[in-house]
Amino acid sequence: MTKKRLPTFHGVPSPLIYRDGGIDLIDQRQLPSKLVVLRITDYVDLADAIREMKVRGAPAIGIAAAYGIVLGMQEEVKRTDLVDRFAQVSAELRGTRPTAVNLFWAITRLERIFQRHKNDRPASLREALLTEAKQIHEEDVKGNQCIGRHGSAILPQDARVLTICNAGFLASGGYGTALGVVRAAWKQGKLSMVYVCETRPLFQGSRLTAWELSREGIPFQLIIDSAAGYLMAKGRIDAVLAGADRITQNGDVTNKIGTYALAVLGDHHRIPLYVAAPTSTIDASLGTGDEVPIEERDGEEVRAPLGVQLAVQGARVWNPAFDVTPARLVSAIITERGVLRPPYHMRTEN
Amino acid sequence: MTKKRLPTFHGVPSPLIYRDGGIDLIDQRQLPSKLVVLRITDYVDLADAIREMKVRGAPAIGIAAAYGIVLGMQEEVKRTDLVDRFAQVSAELRGTRPTAVNLFWAITRLERIFQRHKNDRPASLREALLTEAKQIHEEDVKGNQCIGRHGSAILPQDARVLTICNAGFLASGGYGTALGVVRAAWKQGKLSMVYVCETRPLFQGSRLTAWELSREGIPFQLIIDSAAGYLMAKGRIDAVLAGADRITQNGDVTNKIGTYALAVLGDHHRIPLYVAAPTSTIDASLGTGDEVPIEERDGEEVRAPLGVQLAVQGARVWNPAFDVTPARLVSAIITERGVLRPPYHMRTEN
Repeated sequence: MTKKRLPTFHGVPSPLIYRDGGIDLIDQRQLPSKLVVLRITDYVDLADAIREMKVRGAPAIGIAAAYGIVLGMQEEVKRTDLVDRFAQVSAELRGTRPTAVNLFWAITRLERIFQRHKNDRPASLREALLTEAKQIHEEDVKGNQCIGRHGSAILPQDARVLTICNAGFLASGGYGTALGVVRAAWKQGKLSMVYVCETRPLFQGSRLTAWELSREGIPFQLIIDSAAGYLMAKGRIDAVLAGADRITQNGDVTNKIGTYALAVLGDHHRIPLYVAAPTSTIDASLGTGDEVPIEERDGEEVRAPLGVQLAVQGARVWNPAFDVTPARLVSAIITERGVLRPPYHMRTEN
Repeated sequence: MTKKRLPTFHGVPSPLIYRDGGIDLIDQRQLPSKLVVLRITDYVDLADAIREMKVRGAPAIGIAAAYGIVLGMQEEVKRTDLVDRFAQVSAELRGTRPTAVNLFWAITRLERIFQRHKNDRPASLREALLTEAKQIHEEDVKGNQCIGRHGSAILPQDARVLTICNAGFLASGGYGTALGVVRAAWKQGKLSMVYVCETRPLFQGSRLTAWELSREGIPFQLIIDSAAGYLMAKGRIDAVLAGADRITQNGDVTNKIGTYALAVLGDHHRIPLYVAAPTSTIDASLGTGDEVPIEERDGEEVRAPLGVQLAVQGARVWNPAFDVTPARLVSAIITERGVLRPPYHMRTEN
């Protein structure tokens, strides 16, 4: 690990921050072997960073998109071209990844500010956009700290939890959602072990979650994804903690592929699944998870893990990046406003 | 893939064959990028090949151990040292891997022959041991062809099946167990798709099963292990087909880690789990799967997939190579003698 310092926002580590007209962004694809902080000043580069998963995690890509709008609107354009410019920038950012709703939610918030201030002086417009982006970032961090407290309260003493993917500070504005709950529970002396699913195909568990936990001395063990069921059968898990990429009106949860299997396995073993997510992840415009667009990624991620060709050339692959867990398998949804229990009737706030 | 020819036994591809005082053995760790056939003439090298998983799969390591005894008893030793020699050779082979019972079953068969012939002329003893080893090999291949027919008969027309690990010709004397069912069903025009779990940590699905299916033009798609549940939820699977490393008296099935999760997921989705295994995999000396020794392998397989260090140094790992599926989740056990249905009361034959 290089000695390069982590970006921090309001005192907590963050996957990206705005500074002096640009973004400092951790290239998460290089963690944990290298901590590389990229400097991004062009919104197209930011869109690429989202697409290439240099920054990932639903809340984090929402924040990245908000700052992307700021970068895109920094350039001087003719007043008559302003609306076109905003449309162009927001379309580029909207086109990066389809599943996490926070991306669209954040852009919509910036769009509202744009509409309100588009006739102001250019400097005022830019200032208003930046203020809103920072506001989204700050709300997320504070919200995650609330999620942590709410979530810790529903865990048993000496909890042994299982997580998938990375719903840590890297996936959010800071502090984390599912790992926010882990952090709060650890601080309160309520946590005894975190089991980390490695999370194929991109290994966010091994690479990112293990790194976050290790930095803070939180005890953890890594497992392959397919060992989760056997671990539950052995009585070694008290709760499954997951983040979310989109939660629909009925409480269905779209999250990293594999979450659904953990939900079914948890149900079989009477182990609750707690989904930790800010309300910005709620999309009440969709009735059920069946309506959520699920990103399918390149089969090479499966055929050639870590770039090493394993399967025969041309092997067909089914590689959805997310799955949908029906609300009936979600024991609770932990938001910054409190803990929701079924039956769920989600509303979109703001 | 090199042009090197596959070893064949009675006309079918086999992971290893005995020829002229030695073993030709496919180094399965190098598949599918290279077809390397090793020449092994020393039983210690054969034991290493089992330990290092150059040959793997319960029936295949049983056959390998039988030939290993043959190699170990080939050397000239004093008649008074014969019993010690047999004890030494069989102990070395027994110590390679703990879970698959076929290993111990095959050695026990060779031991019976040794006891019967130990006072014969050395050449006669060697001949008797080799005959028995070849007999085990031949019984396995013929048994797998029976397993294929029995298994195909219980699949629906146009079956879409899900497999884990590799229970193909590479894992057996030839033809395969779970993939024997696939081969038979394909030949009979009953099969429409094989979904192949990549099978972390050693990727036997991506590397070996995909290769076997691809060679024969059987349609397949590769998935990450954690996508199996979502695939079932989408209604795209008619049956799960797995092999076995040990089946206890009550019908509990010990098999590749992840089989248990597929069984629970199958149960949730009303998809049957069919276990295809020769009767040599039955260990009726143990009452339940809880008594089966489960091999735990090096954490590096998880921390550093394919030798690429992913997790932080020193990350703790739980890496069992197998899990236990309780009999109540096993819809049928397909053996060479027919299809068994619950409740199971297994007997050890021979």
